[in-house]
Amino acid sequence: MGAALALAERGRGRTVPNPNVGCVIVREGRVVGRGWTQAGGRPHAEAMALSEAGTNARGATAYVTLEPCAHQSPRGPACSTLLIEAGVARVVAALEDPDARTAGQGFARLEAAGIAVTRSVRANEARRSMAGFLTRQALGRPHVTLKLATSLDGCIAMADGSSRWITGPQARAHAHLERSRHEAILVGRGTYDADAPRLDVRLPGLEARGPMRVLLSSTVQDMSGWTVIAAPHDIATLPGVDHILVEGGAAVASAFLAADLVDRLLLYRAPILIGGGKPALRDIGLTDLTKAHGRWAIVDARQLGMDRLEVYERERNEA
Amino acid sequence: MGAALALAERGRGRTVPNPNVGCVIVREGRVVGRGWTQAGGRPHAEAMALSEAGTNARGATAYVTLEPCAHQSPRGPACSTLLIEAGVARVVAALEDPDARTAGQGFARLEAAGIAVTRSVRANEARRSMAGFLTRQALGRPHVTLKLATSLDGCIAMADGSSRWITGPQARAHAHLERSRHEAILVGRGTYDADAPRLDVRLPGLEARGPMRVLLSSTVQDMSGWTVIAAPHDIATLPGVDHILVEGGAAVASAFLAADLVDRLLLYRAPILIGGGKPALRDIGLTDLTKAHGRWAIVDARQLGMDRLEVYERERNEA
Repeated sequence: MGAALALAERGRGRTVPNPNVGCVIVREGRVVGRGWTQAGGRPHAEAMALSEAGTNARGATAYVTLEPCAHQSPRGPACSTLLIEAGVARVVAALEDPDARTAGQGFARLEAAGIAVTRSVRANEARRSMAGFLTRQALGRPHVTLKLATSLDGCIAMADGSSRWITGPQARAHAHLERSRHEAILVGRGTYDADAPRLDVRLPGLEARGPMRVLLSSTVQDMSGWTVIAAPHDIATLPGVDHILVEGGAAVASAFLAADLVDRLLLYRAPILIGGGKPALRDIGLTDLTKAHGRWAIVDARQLGMDRLEVYERERNEA
Repeated sequence: MGAALALAERGRGRTVPNPNVGCVIVREGRVVGRGWTQAGGRPHAEAMALSEAGTNARGATAYVTLEPCAHQSPRGPACSTLLIEAGVARVVAALEDPDARTAGQGFARLEAAGIAVTRSVRANEARRSMAGFLTRQALGRPHVTLKLATSLDGCIAMADGSSRWITGPQARAHAHLERSRHEAILVGRGTYDADAPRLDVRLPGLEARGPMRVLLSSTVQDMSGWTVIAAPHDIATLPGVDHILVEGGAAVASAFLAADLVDRLLLYRAPILIGGGKPALRDIGLTDLTKAHGRWAIVDARQLGMDRLEVYERERNEA
């Protein structure tokens, strides 16, 4: 399942309207097929892995990060059908598909055909892996990541606005990699004015992964090469966007937090003190300190050169 | 040497005018004596360890975090004399004593008496362990630790001033332990007005370790139970203080940073966002972002309940 989750990452940010699934087929201890959802959502991961496995799929075990789909589509056959036809003996899955067209029916069809099904293997990791698709299914909007790059005292710039550079080259490269994993990036007018030409993916081999560029502004109507929205909630209307990266500045970050629209926080911190600089956030509607607690859980932390990256997720206590 | 460094910690904040040294005496693989500088500076660590070892010191190895002293004092004999008289075969030391009355003469006396001397074992840790004494020797002032307790966005309070609580009970208990390791704690007028009754050590068994309370104020002249100083540099005049903990608020923290008087930064961070709150720092005299880099090195990080403690040291690039 670890290998399937890693393959699933390859599709992140490119598989809308489908989830980025990963699949590994193992027969007698050997990997005979690997697949991940391709750009645009087809082929599905299982179809790709079965194609690679060929007749080796017979009697094999398929590890897949999401329940195989149960519905025939104009774009291809149902994966549950493909797995049955290939003679797979066992399917190990991380998550049930919340899509109403599958929602347990994929598993039911496999079991009816005599295939052993194991559910809920590494489900939390799979949920994180397919956060875009699952947020779209559950909340009808993209999954939102907010990026902040600050000093130890929480400043995103000096008082005069200068912010080059707070973080070092490794942290900035990581931030570019994050851009490539989102269908859209969003900034406010101040960041647009300061940085518009730079809002691309500057990593070797990933230059073509430039995401849709979105401007949040209540005054600008139209901007060439940009999609303009007037309010944070309008992200729900962006076509083909299941993951959006909010890059700044402080007003935009605060507007998304105030609307409780941030699912994931990327906090890049440099080991410097600025003092009296521009704070990372403005008012986010907090009225009582006790209400600030229990909202953010750290899920990853790593060193990037001199800087530290911490990743937090919003605790939503959903069922 | 690790055991000697751990023993040395027991004296931290209580051995002025002497350094907090640790000593372990080992004979044939067994620890036969342990000592650390006692409150007020006497007995020295070596004297205590030799007293415990008795005749077992003959032919043994003494591990000591600082060069044994070479000078007779009205308060006791020189430790180098004691080690020679006890018949120790070998001395392993972490640091040379910068005190002009010893400064290599302790080692020279030991070697002249036929004792093998090994120098510079775990010197960096010993430097950190005796930071108060060494800062007093090198810079003529106490070693300064600045404590900040912030949200992820660098706020020390909400906009209305409320700050109870940002960090949780484990982080607050750790901060009290830090108080017990300093001879003095310093606050500004705002923190005094808000917190004066609470500026003590509230840990079982350590209630008596309450440090000297210092108020930084240019307007207040006299305050019962408090020592008042008018400017950060005046810490050099505080009697019996080799370690001072600067607790806040933002104006005091910024004044010490602007004067480049902070040697160590304790950063307690809670996993919360406040937004538009009181920033940890005001202007600290930074004129160019590039000058902010290379000043702070992380030396420790640990989880304290939900909160994270990071410890930074000022990089002074001294010889």
